[in-house]
Amino acid sequence: MIASAFAHLDADPPVFSPAFRRELEVLFQWRRDVRRFETTKVPERLISQVIRAAATAPSVGLSEPWRFVRVGSSAARRAVIENFEDANALALAAQRRAKRDHYASLKLAGLNEAPVHLAVFCDEATPQGGGLGVGTMPEMRRYSVVCAVMQMWLAARARGLGIGWVSILDPSRVARDRKSVV
Amino acid sequence: MIASAFAHLDADPPVFSPAFRRELEVLFQWRRDVRRFETTKVPERLISQVIRAAATAPSVGLSEPWRFVRVGSSAARRAVIENFEDANALALAAQRRAKRDHYASLKLAGLNEAPVHLAVFCDEATPQGGGLGVGTMPEMRRYSVVCAVMQMWLAARARGLGIGWVSILDPSRVARDRKSVV
Repeated sequence: MIASAFAHLDADPPVFSPAFRRELEVLFQWRRDVRRFETTKVPERLISQVIRAAATAPSVGLSEPWRFVRVGSSAARRAVIENFEDANALALAAQRRAKRDHYASLKLAGLNEAPVHLAVFCDEATPQGGGLGVGTMPEMRRYSVVCAVMQMWLAARARGLGIGWVSILDPSRVARDRKSVV
Repeated sequence: MIASAFAHLDADPPVFSPAFRRELEVLFQWRRDVRRFETTKVPERLISQVIRAAATAPSVGLSEPWRFVRVGSSAARRAVIENFEDANALALAAQRRAKRDHYASLKLAGLNEAPVHLAVFCDEATPQGGGLGVGTMPEMRRYSVVCAVMQMWLAARARGLGIGWVSILDPSRVARDRKSVV
C-alpha cells in the first residue's frame, strides 16, 4: 500500500497546464454547500474515492488526525438529526426578530434526504506526528482535518457528488452519541 | 465585479471528465508543504490569482472571514521570523531527549528565503453571515479560513508556486506585531 501510494515520487514533478488550471477554477466556483439531495444510493466505491482524496490533505507533523465515521444505523442518523433540530431551534431563538423569518426560511440541512452521513472527528490525542508544529497552535490538528474535508469536497464535486457541511450541531453531543448509538 | 464573478451561474453545471479527475488526484499528491524556496520575485499577478482562488472557498453563513495580510516590510518579516525562532526553541525544549536531535535537524520554516510571506487572519467579529451556523460551533469561522488556505495551496501548486504553512508561531504575538510593525 505504501509503496504504491508513493510510486509517483519516482516520477518527475508534474507541470499543470493552463487548461487544467482553468478547469480547477471552474471546480472551485461550482463546489457548493449542498442542502438538497437525491435519495438514491451512493456507490461505495465513490465514497472510498473521496475519503482517499481527503487523506492526501496536508496535516501538521504528518499527524493525519482525521477520523471519518459512517453514520450508518437509523438510530445514529436519528441522533444526528435530533441534534441538528435542537441546535437549530436555539440558533433561531438567538436571531433578532427581523432576521428570524429569513433564518427559518433557509434550508439548513439535508440530513433527512442525504443517503450518506459522514461524521468527521479529530483525534486530538494521536501520537502520530510526535507533537511537531502543535506546541503554540494545538488547533493545527483540527485545521488539518478541515483541510481533509476541503479536499474531499472538491474530489466529490469533480465526480458529480454533492456534499453539505452541517455545523448547526452540538459537537460534544455528537461525540457522546458516537459511543452510545453507532 | 459581482456580475462577472457569478456569470458562470447562467451556464449549465459543468461535468468534469475522468481525465480532469485523474489530474486533480495528481495535484493532491504533489501539493507539498514547502520549506525550501527560490528567492526570485513572485509576480504580483500570480499572488492575486491564488488569493482569488482562496476567496471562492466555502465559509460558514457566507461570512468570508479570511483576511490576507502581506508581510511586506523588513521589520514585519523580522518580527515573524523572531516569533518562529522563539516558538521553535520552546518546541525543541519540549521534545524528549531522544527526539530532540531529529526535531532540530528538520527544516521547519523557509521564512528567510521565501520571497512572499502572507499572514492569514480570521475576522471573528465580522458581521457578515449574521451568525448563521456559528451558534454551537464558533470555530467554524476559523475553519472557513482554513478552507481558503487549502484552496490557495492547490491553486498555487497548479501554477508551480510552492507554499509552506508555518504554525510554529505564537499567533497572538503575530496579531500584536501586526499592529505595531506592519
